[in-house]
Amino acid sequence: MKAYLAGPDVFLTNARENAAAKTAICARYGILGQAPLSDAGTLANLPEAQAWRRIYLDNIEMMQACDIIIANLTPFRGASADSGTLVELGWFLGQGRPVFGYSNSAEYFDARSQAQLAAIADPIPGLAVEGFGLPDNLMISGAAEYGGGLALALPQDGKSRSFDALDIFEACVAAAAGALGGKS
Amino acid sequence: MKAYLAGPDVFLTNARENAAAKTAICARYGILGQAPLSDAGTLANLPEAQAWRRIYLDNIEMMQACDIIIANLTPFRGASADSGTLVELGWFLGQGRPVFGYSNSAEYFDARSQAQLAAIADPIPGLAVEGFGLPDNLMISGAAEYGGGLALALPQDGKSRSFDALDIFEACVAAAAGALGGKS
Repeated sequence: MKAYLAGPDVFLTNARENAAAKTAICARYGILGQAPLSDAGTLANLPEAQAWRRIYLDNIEMMQACDIIIANLTPFRGASADSGTLVELGWFLGQGRPVFGYSNSAEYFDARSQAQLAAIADPIPGLAVEGFGLPDNLMISGAAEYGGGLALALPQDGKSRSFDALDIFEACVAAAAGALGGKS
Repeated sequence: MKAYLAGPDVFLTNARENAAAKTAICARYGILGQAPLSDAGTLANLPEAQAWRRIYLDNIEMMQACDIIIANLTPFRGASADSGTLVELGWFLGQGRPVFGYSNSAEYFDARSQAQLAAIADPIPGLAVEGFGLPDNLMISGAAEYGGGLALALPQDGKSRSFDALDIFEACVAAAAGALGGKS
């Protein structure tokens, strides 16, 4: 069972150590974690217009080779999860491949949306803020629940974790392994 | 040719008028636009936990019935496009159904990301900001280019439009119709 480890974790300064730690956790649950880390050496030699297409195609190729996605959906530069991660989440859903995700934030989406609107002048005053008591946009919770059979893994103690904490990730991996019928 | 008209336009106070205007533009290019508007009357009678699942399942059902997606990817409450729209974009990509999108913002992603970091304290200092001279995360540009054959439709005059302006949407519809071989 190969899992695509999606998330903006690739932007961490210690991205390789983070990916190694995630992969080690997956291995404990019989899952082969695949982290979409770019080869900085190769990319450095490419013009920008080629570099981003190389990363895109490499990511898609890795996704094609994975059975499931385990996505870090912790809010990233805004009220919601990282945008690239969400495209990848939708791709797995569209492919009919199981979708799992977690967030290290204990805050609800509507609270984060209101904070966002307070910090950055709303270009569209009066626009509805919907929350439904969910951690993020309902399409994300729906993708997890209908695509993988589980709710998003979230802090159970009401305390947000740092972006790169791994205990909620591990809870997500354990739940995914259970939902998929154990080791394979 | 049925097009799923994705976007946070559904949160506009005049969402129905906006959807009607978009549908009329699509019709001029031989495309049947489908806007995922919820029936507020039905939803008002449901508990929150049922309401969001009803919206999710209705959206997925409408997506299943559409051949292509035309997504409003104008930045929404953060550096990137609306999160639900991105899940839908990824779904069409995963299904192998053509993906088209537009943004009314003339700003680049890295500039918006920096503005976001300046406005809201960065919970993860030192995290890389990647831009590649693109309007948003590279997975979005890649989805449009490799999934629909076109770059995202953007303001060509360097001037951002209001969130609900429709001229860039129309340019996107025209380009999509052309890419798909005209009326069908």
